[in-house]
Order: sequence, then structure tokens, then C-alpha cells
Amino acid sequence: MKFGGTSVADLERIRRVARLVAAEQAAGHKVAVVVSAMAGKTNELVAWTDGAGPAAQGLPASDDEYDVVVASGEQVTAGLLAMTLRNMGLPARSWMGWQIPIVADDAHGKARIDDIPPEKLGAAMDSGEIAVIAGFQGVTRDGRIATLGRGGSDTSAVAIAAAVGGACDIYTDVDGVYTTDPRIESRARKLPKISYEEMLEMASLGAKVLQTRSVELAMAYGVPVRVLSSFVEPGEAPGQGTIVCDEEEIVEKRIVSGVAYSRDEAKISLFGLPDHPGVSSTIFGALADANVNVDMIVQSHARVADTANMEFTVGKRDAQRAVDIVQSMKGEVGFEDVRLNDDVAKVSVIGVGMRSHTGVAKAMFEALAAKGVNIQVISTSEIKISVLIDAAYTELAVRALHAAYGLDQL
Amino acid sequence: MKFGGTSVADLERIRRVARLVAAEQAAGHKVAVVVSAMAGKTNELVAWTDGAGPAAQGLPASDDEYDVVVASGEQVTAGLLAMTLRNMGLPARSWMGWQIPIVADDAHGKARIDDIPPEKLGAAMDSGEIAVIAGFQGVTRDGRIATLGRGGSDTSAVAIAAAVGGACDIYTDVDGVYTTDPRIESRARKLPKISYEEMLEMASLGAKVLQTRSVELAMAYGVPVRVLSSFVEPGEAPGQGTIVCDEEEIVEKRIVSGVAYSRDEAKISLFGLPDHPGVSSTIFGALADANVNVDMIVQSHARVADTANMEFTVGKRDAQRAVDIVQSMKGEVGFEDVRLNDDVAKVSVIGVGMRSHTGVAKAMFEALAAKGVNIQVISTSEIKISVLIDAAYTELAVRALHAAYGLDQL
Repeated sequence: MKFGGTSVADLERIRRVARLVAAEQAAGHKVAVVVSAMAGKTNELVAWTDGAGPAAQGLPASDDEYDVVVASGEQVTAGLLAMTLRNMGLPARSWMGWQIPIVADDAHGKARIDDIPPEKLGAAMDSGEIAVIAGFQGVTRDGRIATLGRGGSDTSAVAIAAAVGGACDIYTDVDGVYTTDPRIESRARKLPKISYEEMLEMASLGAKVLQTRSVELAMAYGVPVRVLSSFVEPGEAPGQGTIVCDEEEIVEKRIVSGVAYSRDEAKISLFGLPDHPGVSSTIFGALADANVNVDMIVQSHARVADTANMEFTVGKRDAQRAVDIVQSMKGEVGFEDVRLNDDVAKVSVIGVGMRSHTGVAKAMFEALAAKGVNIQVISTSEIKISVLIDAAYTELAVRALHAAYGLDQL
Repeated sequence: MKFGGTSVADLERIRRVARLVAAEQAAGHKVAVVVSAMAGKTNELVAWTDGAGPAAQGLPASDDEYDVVVASGEQVTAGLLAMTLRNMGLPARSWMGWQIPIVADDAHGKARIDDIPPEKLGAAMDSGEIAVIAGFQGVTRDGRIATLGRGGSDTSAVAIAAAVGGACDIYTDVDGVYTTDPRIESRARKLPKISYEEMLEMASLGAKVLQTRSVELAMAYGVPVRVLSSFVEPGEAPGQGTIVCDEEEIVEKRIVSGVAYSRDEAKISLFGLPDHPGVSSTIFGALADANVNVDMIVQSHARVADTANMEFTVGKRDAQRAVDIVQSMKGEVGFEDVRLNDDVAKVSVIGVGMRSHTGVAKAMFEALAAKGVNIQVISTSEIKISVLIDAAYTELAVRALHAAYGLDQL
């Protein structure tokens, strides 16, 4: 069971979580609970690191000490939930990442889990003790705290489930996965099931229900995942939520399952690049070395002979740094100009049905054109199409696409 | 160097601390810095544990999970100070109790440090790196977080200094040790030097400058300790503070060095105890088993033949629990009645000169009598005299004694 920040935002909600945990144990299950920091706490901690750390000088704030600070939020919740469970007469103890251990690499701020030896945790759970685990954190091989990135507690939960051989219920403030964000489109519908692949695309394209990495892990290890609401009254069951599973387990397949969007985008445009091999690898190699994730990339010939233009997108947080890195290579690479536009959004349609149906892209472009939405960049995969548009058109585009694929008719 | 909660209360103050640390390193010292939680944070965390934990049912809140929660405050400060130092271009890293490790026993909530292997910390400091250490916390031999009690960061600092063979500067919000609390007696004077023994008594009798255990450790390992203010402007030196040292190093000895007081007292009175051997050991054995510290004890014969009355004091926090424990032994012990009075305070005079001078007690009782202060319980040691009085008379008594021993004339 995993509970996010809003589900453990105060002591009353932690008691509600404790009741859900108790019910699960009473149903005969061995239970491990992964908790996030109390809502707002991580933001408070991150704000302090912004004030104290290298970010004050425009350098990345995500280092080993950043992790020391922000990992403390989950520690607090884990201790409080363990106390609350004990207070209800249930055996429980908290586990920090370094105690299990949840072994992670040293990409501080967005570390990946390398290994979770199941022995200690499994023995505790076998003894009937509820394991309350601080999410979002691991420990590097040289004993430093490492955090797993925003939403990392989802990944902690799936990885724990994989390690001890269990299923993973992600409790959150919504009661499942929706066809799109209900705050934008009130006719969004809850999906009873969604495939790992679709969930993976939805997560990586901006749907905030699950962290991308957690879905990758669930898919790789075949961990059954369920997304459901923690906001139930005492005695009430938490509903069925949405099951994330193998595509084969889904009987009624749809061509498009959802529309996702992300405003955390920035577009960097390079003009007048020399048109010869190696330019791209120089630029993107340098960005990769600096831990900047590049998403969409398009390259086109410029009007000037033997030069090209290139556009790519990065997360807003990395945007200025990416520009600085590119700028510093101006002599080496020899381009003419670099520009940043962070007033953009990415809107995507996702569905495994795209594999077998044509015309999905055409319908998308038509629907957007009908609303006068200009497409700046396009990228596609086997089961999704993403477009970069002016941020002001985000909601309009989401609603147009939701209707175009009949998602409100489910 | 150790910095308390008010010295690291916000990012601006953490920067001030970083400048003091930088100056110390620039002066050629290897530096380890022990930090407390940001002012107010520990109280916030303790309040949450009170709401979540056994304390809600009148049981002690100090257990292993309590420690998990409250230890997080120091983790935050350690990370933030390390980031701040790096931001100033200085090599620094944070150390949690479990990373060094600071090995502690499992008396959670008031654990004692058993061992600090100096190898890892020493190697880091030898390399020129500033070690920023989360105070107040250690790790038990079975890998759980244990906290050292209120003021435990002082003990962390002295223990670290002992482990790596250094001196210990305790930076706080006052600029040294005073003859008494300046908030009560404006004529209180700063002491240039004070002996370990006197500091120990002052600390254990209510002066909040240093944790008792830290002074014991300093005395046992001969760690030179200095108390000084962290509230200095950029570029300003932090003054001389008060040096805590061996009695032999103090040339000008005073009969009485200070007047301390504590309002954290509760008096428990037992009436009609059977007057035979073993009664005291039964009662105080049970209290010790429950981790209740008993301070002053007096026993007197009652008017009823073959019975005795007994009074003892405990900390306010433990008072009701102590009464419950005593009450539960009523059948076994056979006393008539137990009463609790927590409207009392302890006022003490301390001075190594008492060893060689008589009349100190007489002067104390005369000074209190002259102000109409009734003495309920008296206890003495070689270098201090304490009296328990009605709490309402605390300030009056402190000022009367401060004047009676000429401490305002220093």
C-alpha cells in the first residue's frame, strides 16, 4: 500500500490511512506501507534548499545534500504512521531507505533503485509486523541518502512489492486513472483498467497519477498495480479504482485511452547549425552529461545552404541551464543563435489501439486545426502522439481531443 | 563547533553560522560542526508524535518511532548548512548519526552515546572537508535511530570532540555562562571561566546553557569546552565566552559561582508508609524500571507510630506516570495516601568554594527566610545546595540568593 502526500497531510488523515492498513491486515494480508511526506512538507524543504544551495547561483540544486534535506519529510510520516498503528494495538515499525536497505545509484535528486534485498523486510513482515516504509528515498552503495525524484514514493512502493513478491495498491487523492485531467474536462471518465504501456506513456506525458519509473518497474516485474482513493470514511471500502495490468488482461480495447498534457516544457531553438555529422551528438552529449533530459527533437534544413535549424524540449527547471550549456559550445559547434521559449505545452493522445488502427494522427491534427491550435513540434511512438503547442491553448486542445476520440462516451 | 536551534533558525542565520565556520577553517583548524534542528522544528515534530503516539493514551511518547520523527529536524539543518558551505566554495558534507556512526544505546528518547569510531569522520576531516553533523541523534547497535534527549546536540558535540581529539565550542544565543538567568536578575554577570563540576551542577539544576550529559562527557575526557554567542555580525569575532575547564585552571575562585533554578519539578508525597527496610528500594526500583528520574528524596517519621512519610521530586513530564506507578504498588507497599504537587520550583546555589568554606547553607536559609520563602525540601552535594519552594517565589528567591552571595559584585 502506498499513500501520497495529501493522504497523510495531517494526523487525522494518518489515522484514516492506519484504518485502511488495519483492514488490509485483518483481511489476512502481510502489509508493507510506503508513505510520502505530509503534503506541503517537501515543498517547504525544497524551498530551503533553493535558498541554501547551489541553485542560488543558477547551478542544479539536486545534489547529495539536497537529498539529505528533502528525504527527511518521509521519515517523519513513516514514524508517525508506525506510532499511530501501534496506538491501535497493531505491531508496526518504520523503515528508512538505509535500514532495509533500498540500494540506489548516486544520481542524487533522481536516483534509480538498484536493489532491495528482501531478507530483513520479509522477515519482519512474516512475523506479522506492519512495515511502514519511508518512500522516495534510498541509500547509495557508499552510504549516502539518495532521493528518487518527484513521485518517487510510487517507485519505492512498486519496487518493494517486486522485492517481497506482492501486489501494489497506490492510494491517492483521486479514485483511479481518468481519460484526462477532470479539472480540465469534467466529462473525463475513470478507466477500470489500463495497460502498463499506456500508463507508462500517460505518466511520462504529464498525468500525475503515477511516477513513470514506477510503471516501468511494475511492467518489468509484472507487479499488479491498482490506483485508488484514500479518501474514504471509516468503515467504507476504497472502491475498485483502476487496475494497471498487462494489455492481454484488458478485454475491451480502445484505440485511444487518454489525453495527457504537460506544462513543464521549454523549447530551445538553435539556428544556423553547420550541417555535418556529429553536431547533434556533441550537443546532446553535453546535455546528457549535465543530467538534462531532452524530450522532443526536430531538425530541419535552413534556408541558408549547408546549415540546419534544430528544436528540442527540456523540462522548465532545466531550461536556463540547457541554454547556458548550449551557449558555451557556440565556438565548438558553430551555430548562429539559440533561443528559449518556455511558454509552451505538450498535449498527447495515448492508446495501444494505435498499433492496429490508422488515422489516429490525422484525427488529432484535424481536431486541433478546427480549434485554430498551431502545432510547433510533433513526436510519436507506437502508442502515442504528442504535439507541442502554445501554452495558452492547453485546455482547449485537451478538450478538443477528448471529444474527438469519443472519450466522453465511454 | 556546535550551533543550537536559535542559531540555525532560518537560512540567514545558517549563512551566519557558515561564516563562523569558514573563519575557523581559515584559522587553520579542521572543523566538525554539530547542528540542532531549526528553532521550533523539534517542538512541531514532538507535537505530532504527541498526537499520533502512545502519549495520547497517557503512555510515554519516547519510543523508537518517536526518535525516527524528531531526529529528522537535525537532518534538515545538517543538509542545509553543508549546502551553504559548498555555496561559499568550501568542501563540506553532512553526517547523520548512522553514517559516522554515533553508536547509542536503545533508551529511546534519552539514549546515551556508547561509541564513536573516529575513522571515517577523521579521514574526511583530514582531507580538508568540513564535517557537518546532525546533533541529538545516534544509531543503536541494531540499526534504529535513537535520540539523546533535549539538549542532546551538546552531548553530540562534546562526544565528537572527544572522539577526534579536539576542543568544543558551543555557540548559542547567549555569550557565555552567567551567575544566574539574566532574564530574572539583570545584574547577572558573565563568568570568564567555570569548572566542569560547577557547570555540571548548573546544567543539571536547570541552567539551560549545556546539557548535563555533555558536561559529564567533557569532564571525563578532558574536552576543553567554550560557550559563546553565534549572534555576531559578519566580520565580527564571537567574543571570548565562558571557558569550561578543570578547577585547577581557575585562579580566582569564588565560594558561590551561580544560582540556578528549575520549574520542571513535581513533588510526590507518600504518607503512612510502613517503617521497615526495603520499602524505598521497592518504590524507587519500580520508578527506575519505568525510566523515571527521581531527584530529591526526604523521609521522615510520621506521627503515627511505625510509619513514615516520604517526599520526592521528579520531572513534570514524568509526574503523573510516577504517581500511577506508585499508586499501583499500594497493595504491595501498604502506604496510606499519595499526593502530587507540581506547583514547586527548585532553587540552587553552586560553587566549588563550598568545599572549603562553611556557612554557605546558613547564608542561603537566612536570605530566603528574610524574604519569607518557605523551604519544602533540601538536598545538598559537595558543591551545591538545592531547596524546593513554592513556584510563585522562584524569581524572588533567585534574586535574593544572587545578592546574598555578592554575585552582582563580581
